[in-house]
Amino acid sequence: MATTRQWRLASRPVGEPAPENFDLVTVERPEPGPNEVLVRTLYQSVDPYMRGRMRDAESYAEPWVVDEPMRAGVVGEVLESNAAAFSTGDIVTGDLLWAEHAVADAGELRPVNPEHGPISTALGVLGMPGVTAYFGLLDVGEPTPGDTVVVSAAAGAVGSVVGQLAQLSGARVVGTAGSEEKIAWLTDDLGFDAAINYKTTDDLSSAVDDACPDGIDVYFDNVGGPITDAVWPRLNVRARVAVCGQIALYNETDVPTGPRKLGKLIESRVTVEGFLVTDYEGRWGEALERLSQFVQSGEIQYREHVVEGFENAPDAFLGLFEGENIGKQLVKVAEDDR
Amino acid sequence: MATTRQWRLASRPVGEPAPENFDLVTVERPEPGPNEVLVRTLYQSVDPYMRGRMRDAESYAEPWVVDEPMRAGVVGEVLESNAAAFSTGDIVTGDLLWAEHAVADAGELRPVNPEHGPISTALGVLGMPGVTAYFGLLDVGEPTPGDTVVVSAAAGAVGSVVGQLAQLSGARVVGTAGSEEKIAWLTDDLGFDAAINYKTTDDLSSAVDDACPDGIDVYFDNVGGPITDAVWPRLNVRARVAVCGQIALYNETDVPTGPRKLGKLIESRVTVEGFLVTDYEGRWGEALERLSQFVQSGEIQYREHVVEGFENAPDAFLGLFEGENIGKQLVKVAEDDR
Repeated sequence: MATTRQWRLASRPVGEPAPENFDLVTVERPEPGPNEVLVRTLYQSVDPYMRGRMRDAESYAEPWVVDEPMRAGVVGEVLESNAAAFSTGDIVTGDLLWAEHAVADAGELRPVNPEHGPISTALGVLGMPGVTAYFGLLDVGEPTPGDTVVVSAAAGAVGSVVGQLAQLSGARVVGTAGSEEKIAWLTDDLGFDAAINYKTTDDLSSAVDDACPDGIDVYFDNVGGPITDAVWPRLNVRARVAVCGQIALYNETDVPTGPRKLGKLIESRVTVEGFLVTDYEGRWGEALERLSQFVQSGEIQYREHVVEGFENAPDAFLGLFEGENIGKQLVKVAEDDR
Repeated sequence: MATTRQWRLASRPVGEPAPENFDLVTVERPEPGPNEVLVRTLYQSVDPYMRGRMRDAESYAEPWVVDEPMRAGVVGEVLESNAAAFSTGDIVTGDLLWAEHAVADAGELRPVNPEHGPISTALGVLGMPGVTAYFGLLDVGEPTPGDTVVVSAAAGAVGSVVGQLAQLSGARVVGTAGSEEKIAWLTDDLGFDAAINYKTTDDLSSAVDDACPDGIDVYFDNVGGPITDAVWPRLNVRARVAVCGQIALYNETDVPTGPRKLGKLIESRVTVEGFLVTDYEGRWGEALERLSQFVQSGEIQYREHVVEGFENAPDAFLGLFEGENIGKQLVKVAEDDR
């Protein structure tokens, strides 16, 4: 009997997730049914939004089920196909499982063209994080030339694309990140106008003031919490806040009150808008085409933090909350030996 | 020498404003210069936004100056005019002073037609509060038929118009207010679908749940704080929050953190937008025309809470924070003896 390994949700975390919330099990390898495809995982994505799936709360997506395999973006190789659209050996991507192998309906998969670049980018700059950055910045944030754009978690998979797209829009770009290596990448390599290391800055408010002498026109928020508090009073008239993530708060168990200081929104007529990349499903191709051009021309650079080995997937996920990744956090599950 | 009385800002409050923050002084009555008009105040408005003017902080409007007269919306009678547009005896309205008489440039005044209804309405349903409700609800909140609209401070000058306009838009309307008399006005007279007395409700969350079985599509927020906390988790997908005021927080001295629970905005793709009626200056006439029609047809009802006597203007203002008013809070400064 052919087997495969899956990571399952062992228990729901209270506060910080920990290794004991995950369970590695070996199961029979599934067989594809009609119009289905068996995929061997090469790269698995871990993403901050997954923290929400660990909760037992209704949200925009179903919560993960305890003792069931968890879902994840995957790039893999087609091992068997019962679908006309895919052949053995094709590289595909889709929302599959934390698993070495998984079966998917052909309609859930998109082809990945290995000639367009490293296949892992289909989980990063040319995948969900890149598309999130694209629509979140351009559709929700709407920067115009001369605007000051602040992006939090700027060295992450989404933030680094947001900052570079903002530069291409003619904006002045300021990022926040949590290590000197990240700050150096943002300012030296990506050419951000300023970057703030929130972990070593005593006074975030002054740091934001110094970095944004003309105030802030667009805030692309991946983190929430104290960084948002520092940005808030500096929002300009008609500023736009695109709320993409709140990773600083995902593990908080005690957030007694909701929004405060909304008076600032009145004073400056600010719009705060939450968005989900899944709402842009019909326009995914448009974003990927533009992002591919920018990556090929070098106008958008990217980095990946690859954790080796499927057994380390939970560590890779937990590492997101420690900020260990520069760029996209990935798990390399198997060798691409085509 | 002809004299007049003015209320001046004696000191800036810390926390709750108090009578000692105001100073009644008698001064020489001003004389109108070229293109100016001398106005005798008949009604003076007191409004929650004035709390912001008492601070020494830059905002959308200049802070009031200590030892100077404070500004207020006024309806008054023209005593002397050096402007072609106005004649002695005309009734006018404008942003003048907490004063029995004031001089204004003709360009700062609008005529009030006493034949259209009580002149005091130019400070309420047919003035700034009504126009605020009109654009805030229709332009920012954008209710559609079948939506559930929640409005806080629903028995106030703005909220009561918001709720009735929402009804006219075909929405289900729920209001919050702080007395049984207000609740009765909302449900029995104005026909709101439900109203919540936030002062006597032990569990605001359950009360909002019960009143909004289909969730909330538009939240018109006049108060902020705990009521907003109760509304927040019940916002539907694509809900709109129109932030008009935050009276529950204006006197708070210790609000350590800013926005929290913005994750909800992502989950439900909610837009939160602050607005100022002053941004709609060019469309003021459009709003007044529609509101006048609704008032004349009885489709919009209004109430006024009139405090008699100029010497009681600070008490009328302080009463706003106690929720003493049903409808528009006004000070009757002089008899309309035309």
